[in-house]
Amino acid sequence: MLSRTLVLVVSPLLLLLSANAHPTVRRTENNKGFNCLATSRQNSQAKSTGSTVTFGEGSSGLGRREGKIEFGYGAFDGPSTWPGECQTGKNQSPIDLLAAAPNLLQPPRLDVRFQDVCTPVKFFNNGNTVEVEMPEGQKEMGFVAGNGEFFELKQFHFHTPSEHRLQEKHLPIEMHMVHQNKAGRISVLAVFFDFAGQNGEGANSFLSQLVPHLPKIKARDQETTIPGISFAPILSLIKQSSDFVYNGSLTTPPCSENVLWNVVQQPVKLTLEEYMPLVDIVGFNSRPLMRNDNVAPPPAGTQVAIPNKVEISTPISATEQPESTSAVVPSQATQTQVPAPAVLAGGIEVVPLR
Amino acid sequence: MLSRTLVLVVSPLLLLLSANAHPTVRRTENNKGFNCLATSRQNSQAKSTGSTVTFGEGSSGLGRREGKIEFGYGAFDGPSTWPGECQTGKNQSPIDLLAAAPNLLQPPRLDVRFQDVCTPVKFFNNGNTVEVEMPEGQKEMGFVAGNGEFFELKQFHFHTPSEHRLQEKHLPIEMHMVHQNKAGRISVLAVFFDFAGQNGEGANSFLSQLVPHLPKIKARDQETTIPGISFAPILSLIKQSSDFVYNGSLTTPPCSENVLWNVVQQPVKLTLEEYMPLVDIVGFNSRPLMRNDNVAPPPAGTQVAIPNKVEISTPISATEQPESTSAVVPSQATQTQVPAPAVLAGGIEVVPLR
Repeated sequence: MLSRTLVLVVSPLLLLLSANAHPTVRRTENNKGFNCLATSRQNSQAKSTGSTVTFGEGSSGLGRREGKIEFGYGAFDGPSTWPGECQTGKNQSPIDLLAAAPNLLQPPRLDVRFQDVCTPVKFFNNGNTVEVEMPEGQKEMGFVAGNGEFFELKQFHFHTPSEHRLQEKHLPIEMHMVHQNKAGRISVLAVFFDFAGQNGEGANSFLSQLVPHLPKIKARDQETTIPGISFAPILSLIKQSSDFVYNGSLTTPPCSENVLWNVVQQPVKLTLEEYMPLVDIVGFNSRPLMRNDNVAPPPAGTQVAIPNKVEISTPISATEQPESTSAVVPSQATQTQVPAPAVLAGGIEVVPLR
Repeated sequence: MLSRTLVLVVSPLLLLLSANAHPTVRRTENNKGFNCLATSRQNSQAKSTGSTVTFGEGSSGLGRREGKIEFGYGAFDGPSTWPGECQTGKNQSPIDLLAAAPNLLQPPRLDVRFQDVCTPVKFFNNGNTVEVEMPEGQKEMGFVAGNGEFFELKQFHFHTPSEHRLQEKHLPIEMHMVHQNKAGRISVLAVFFDFAGQNGEGANSFLSQLVPHLPKIKARDQETTIPGISFAPILSLIKQSSDFVYNGSLTTPPCSENVLWNVVQQPVKLTLEEYMPLVDIVGFNSRPLMRNDNVAPPPAGTQVAIPNKVEISTPISATEQPESTSAVVPSQATQTQVPAPAVLAGGIEVVPLR
């Protein structure tokens, strides 16, 4: 990857679902054992609705070649040079999730409704990351937030190393699954990937759907298609793990705020054979930790209850009925000391889930 | 690691070698097969000489509890908040070495003179990294620069992920071996660590000397001793690999400039079993790429000759005679396109090796 600048949509295509009232949705079974969701509009060309809501996060997802913000992670185009809200915002991302844990929102258990996609999907290199763009019009593909509102999955992409940190520690990969609701609000469901260990035991099969296609998109603007994508390998983990919920921002320009973050605490396990070709192409694209007045860490010495990791037992089928939305009560909690920040940013304000 | 602030020496102990004219140096053999260098002054208490030269890089190395600069890598104490020269410097580190390759100094092949240390050495957690402090008075421990000047090894420590990048790519670990010459100038010999792959084949044994001791220094200010340290496992690689040489700065406050960097291109291989406990303690401590007028990348489209990696064949004994200093002529070179920076910082000035 020779250039680390990126095409970012400033006038994206929103409200397509409502504008294209109820595309036909049908479930199919293919010979891979996927439980498929196909739509009547897959791979259709997007067109602008003239919306003024900014979109970003890694790339565009929708109409990614309209409007551009060039940025990167180097000395001349890195985070300290990013424009506007990236510098002036008050509730930016990423943050240290464990340090901020006491001030995070109380998460409902995630009601995710990802379906396998059996039609070809775009997989491309935008210069800062590799990204899978979801077909349009899959009204059941996404998750239901605590207030019952549905966020539709638009695209997912990767950061190496992780952008969010856990008590100062980073993980090898963070996947951002970018969603949007009908009102245009963005929510990112983030999934950490950690190493399965030297023997690879317990490695998840999710990334094996993407890694073989990486050689075709080594350079910026290269694009390929993959036959489909199954979320089944990570679905049960996402559903059962505790998650960190807070209001932050896109981690890439324009760094728009009021982004609802759901970061899954339990990492997905990967092998070195999956990690190495991915990081070789994606490279370093992790924004530094940001100030976020919503979730400023508590003063030094505060006892913090951190939800324990959830043990995943039997996999949950991708076709099971969506769970009812209910508040998560962490079954156990560990105690830890949270360090004092050098500077406390204003008052701590916790924004209720909307 | 609960707090990521660090004790930094502002009034370090310099010129100890010359002030303590020729401590007795003797070589011993121990039962580990080490080829040992022991000194009459090992583990002696350091005392200030009143020098005004600033010292830093990860921690102090010498007299690390005199004078303090508190810093970290979080939202409130991260690189954007670091003081003085960290913000105003013109020739800072780290940089993208491959992007800047045409403007780097022509390196002489490294004349390294590391000896095995068979006396106990300090291994400690300073809040930002784990560090091994070298015993004092080992006049042959270090390397000879291109002008014949000797730099003595003071300490080495770790950054995760790497601070320097290679055409936008980061590596899992970068080890900084901090040296100083008699005049007080600092030189860092940096060594990348990359994964040996899922089967661990080809993993180097260097880190295995440190990893078992990590549980004793999980928290800031915890310290232990290790029985000794052998550089033999990495010595042949350091001697034979191409390296990137440039004038930059410390990558931690006070970010002092005129630091001579020698970054070994060929990474040392490590296993996941070594990586995971190290990153768990060290956490994220990688400064963003900085502007460096000495080595600003060339304009877009410039053909860049990058020295090929050197294949390491038979290990070189730690006791072999130091090589004569001679200019490196890369045996082969690959061509690559270097991207244009968004902003070119002033004129490109290459500072000759002094």
